[in-house]
Amino acid sequence: MSKNLTSRAEDYSKWYNELVVKADLAENSAVRGCMVIKPYGYAIWEKMQAELDRMFKETGHQNAYFPLFVPKSLFEAEEKNAEGFAKECAVVTHYRLQNDPDNEGKLRVDPEAKLEEELVVRPTSEAIIWSTYKGWIESYRDLPILINQWANVVRWEMRTRLFLRTAEFLWQEGHTAHATKKEALAEAELMNNVYSEFAENFMAIPVIKGVKTESERFAGAIETFCIEALMQDGKALQAGTSHFLGQNFAKAFDVKFTNNEGKLEYVWATSWGVSTRLMGALIMTHSDDKGLVLPPNLAPSQVVIVPIYKTDEQFEIITKKANSIIQDLKAKGISCKLDGRTTHRPGAKFAQHELQGVPLRIAIGPKDLENGTVELARRDTLTKEIVVMSDLIAKIDGLLKRIQEELFTKALTFRDSHITEVDDFETFKKVLVSKTGFISAHWDGTTETELKIKELTKATIRCIPSDAKNEEGKCVFTGKPSSRRVLFAKAY
Amino acid sequence: MSKNLTSRAEDYSKWYNELVVKADLAENSAVRGCMVIKPYGYAIWEKMQAELDRMFKETGHQNAYFPLFVPKSLFEAEEKNAEGFAKECAVVTHYRLQNDPDNEGKLRVDPEAKLEEELVVRPTSEAIIWSTYKGWIESYRDLPILINQWANVVRWEMRTRLFLRTAEFLWQEGHTAHATKKEALAEAELMNNVYSEFAENFMAIPVIKGVKTESERFAGAIETFCIEALMQDGKALQAGTSHFLGQNFAKAFDVKFTNNEGKLEYVWATSWGVSTRLMGALIMTHSDDKGLVLPPNLAPSQVVIVPIYKTDEQFEIITKKANSIIQDLKAKGISCKLDGRTTHRPGAKFAQHELQGVPLRIAIGPKDLENGTVELARRDTLTKEIVVMSDLIAKIDGLLKRIQEELFTKALTFRDSHITEVDDFETFKKVLVSKTGFISAHWDGTTETELKIKELTKATIRCIPSDAKNEEGKCVFTGKPSSRRVLFAKAY
Repeated sequence: MSKNLTSRAEDYSKWYNELVVKADLAENSAVRGCMVIKPYGYAIWEKMQAELDRMFKETGHQNAYFPLFVPKSLFEAEEKNAEGFAKECAVVTHYRLQNDPDNEGKLRVDPEAKLEEELVVRPTSEAIIWSTYKGWIESYRDLPILINQWANVVRWEMRTRLFLRTAEFLWQEGHTAHATKKEALAEAELMNNVYSEFAENFMAIPVIKGVKTESERFAGAIETFCIEALMQDGKALQAGTSHFLGQNFAKAFDVKFTNNEGKLEYVWATSWGVSTRLMGALIMTHSDDKGLVLPPNLAPSQVVIVPIYKTDEQFEIITKKANSIIQDLKAKGISCKLDGRTTHRPGAKFAQHELQGVPLRIAIGPKDLENGTVELARRDTLTKEIVVMSDLIAKIDGLLKRIQEELFTKALTFRDSHITEVDDFETFKKVLVSKTGFISAHWDGTTETELKIKELTKATIRCIPSDAKNEEGKCVFTGKPSSRRVLFAKAY
Repeated sequence: MSKNLTSRAEDYSKWYNELVVKADLAENSAVRGCMVIKPYGYAIWEKMQAELDRMFKETGHQNAYFPLFVPKSLFEAEEKNAEGFAKECAVVTHYRLQNDPDNEGKLRVDPEAKLEEELVVRPTSEAIIWSTYKGWIESYRDLPILINQWANVVRWEMRTRLFLRTAEFLWQEGHTAHATKKEALAEAELMNNVYSEFAENFMAIPVIKGVKTESERFAGAIETFCIEALMQDGKALQAGTSHFLGQNFAKAFDVKFTNNEGKLEYVWATSWGVSTRLMGALIMTHSDDKGLVLPPNLAPSQVVIVPIYKTDEQFEIITKKANSIIQDLKAKGISCKLDGRTTHRPGAKFAQHELQGVPLRIAIGPKDLENGTVELARRDTLTKEIVVMSDLIAKIDGLLKRIQEELFTKALTFRDSHITEVDDFETFKKVLVSKTGFISAHWDGTTETELKIKELTKATIRCIPSDAKNEEGKCVFTGKPSSRRVLFAKAY
């Protein structure tokens, strides 16, 4: 494992790509645009899954599983949604291979095994799920339905990047059905709040909550709530979205219910999702030129112990000591592993754990055994100190909490210092290039202006922040009146 | 929810199909052969997943994720494996839909978006994984690789049944790489033992461990270890398999390593999997004419409380009491929910929880409040008793353990009484039809005989049991010499 990463200053994009591969998180596969998530990367994703799953269940949701395939006729039923995804659909047309008569030992698609109706590999599951809900809903007593699904989805993207944009990705998608508009809206907002809490408290990533403009909305949604994060290179990243779908899908799939007054009404819907893209957000929020920096909540091992020894006897004593530390930490719910590999030198181990972002590293050598001490190193600050063995467990417990907090604070300070209020288009363009980050500016509310600005600067409206104040102003581009600022940025 | 199920005696197959749907476990979807796993069914699957995942990690395995798609050229690389799955492959040929010019509002496959190389939706992942391992393995220091994946797979089956045989199903697939044959064989056997322990101790399903005959082996395997269970209708069900793949995939994908003597060798492989088919095994092992019977380990709620009341005041008092019971049970790690729905009568609730197999039901009525008692009912035996409140928690704790054990014992007694030693083919045919179950008989070891018996009776060799004794005998069909008995049965 080579330690030398391209620095962020040199080439941020290259730094990211190298880091993902060198830290053993993921790699490109033999399938165009699809990634292999390696065990270390997957272990981090499992931590995210476990916490999100807990939060979903705590807010009354259950998991279920719906088919991978969507028959074309169902896929096209909700027109806006179909239009939004049609250009990036993997389509199954045949169900059998056969020996290729022209090519011994090779296979070809059996032309006789053509499907009567093509199957779309789900890019999202509204269509298949609402065609199912039709059979489940008759009366208001069947509502609400609060279901989440952990699944893989496929969107045939032309330009892909590990975790950020891949043809296949893993995600969760919540799909809920409600008797009233008010309830569905509240659900969509609730789940956006769950995402925001998760991002900030668990991943230590500060986010801005808001709603999307019409042109940035999910295809088929009436309102898209979102959380937006800011990466170290000053580009924004949409970290999660929660959609109020109105009655669009209920109408497309004819899903009605009898309300408590005996009248038939269409059902109200939401959907919400976060994906393995969050891995990209995690990496680009906290990591540095030496590699990954993991918030303790997400680290597969929060602490690693590296023994430093010359003799077998020393190795044995240190191993015993290490195992006792591991037990004591485990009792406190802290994960720790001993890197006892005899095939690697301590220096190589230090470099690997630094690259892989293990929050705390303990080194124990012969002198430590004599003195009853260890060397304790923080990954985030790269600082070291000598700790007396008897203080170690309490020290680690406190440090992990502090690291989690400090990573958030650091990212928040960076983010907040990269929100710039701008009132004219020249400054807008300058700030976007020189300072980068979010630009808080007035906008006249038209899609036309939004698209024009995008065309000229590549900046899009990331969101209309939920906490935006009413403030009379003039659109930064057209000068037309505006009543509140929105956030622009270049984005992933 | 209708309570009346077809009885097992009347029509076992119909009983199964009705039970799966009425107990809210799963249903057929709009996609041919693909199922929707409903929240209650999925919650049971999640319990299985959590326990298996724990067992895999305890035996040193890590999770990872590999692509859904396999390029055709990789798929065909290991010939036997390709041949085994070619006839049931869903194939992606295009990556885009477009508006259908002949049909307004409809979509069609964009003929210009044809893939250069077709993608097979994975029916199993050896090909894509071994093409990846090639990049990971250089030296013996990179071995073993012990990886598991939780995923969906697709096999285009013509006749499907919920959980037992579906076009798409959920499973885990372990894929390991080793430096020696001995180590790979030990791994394959270890994982078969993990499956056996899981089936027996967690699912309360007795299984027979053994190996498959050549014709029943996994396509591409040298040896297939398996666990075989017996359903209540006397048919066998393969509940899990673990394959020793030899060097077949390493050769197909040219995966070599430098051994510790500096020589290049091909890597040794195993793969092993269990799937949502286990849900079928669960249902058909324990359930009865009144519905599902769940071993406590697998019950989403182990206990349900049904309040019986006339006045709001009674409802309130009972609810308080129930919540205190729930808290006390939770402290003991027992899950319990209150069915406080005001839209359903107690009788309807009793019927539903019976149908859904909740192991223990508590009913609390006004008289119980006076007497400080509750009524406690067991789902498996359908027995009830009055329990003094102060004894309740300990009583439940003991009962849940007992139910788990007794379900296993009951299934084991049934299974053992359905293994019949048979020495002539007339008896073989008779037993297969009248008594059903496993037939333990001598076999001459040839595929020819095996296929002939299958053709004549529909019985296959389920396995050569691991604990089969050496015993001189004559093949039940040909009379040729045989040195041990094998197990025949009709199977799912």
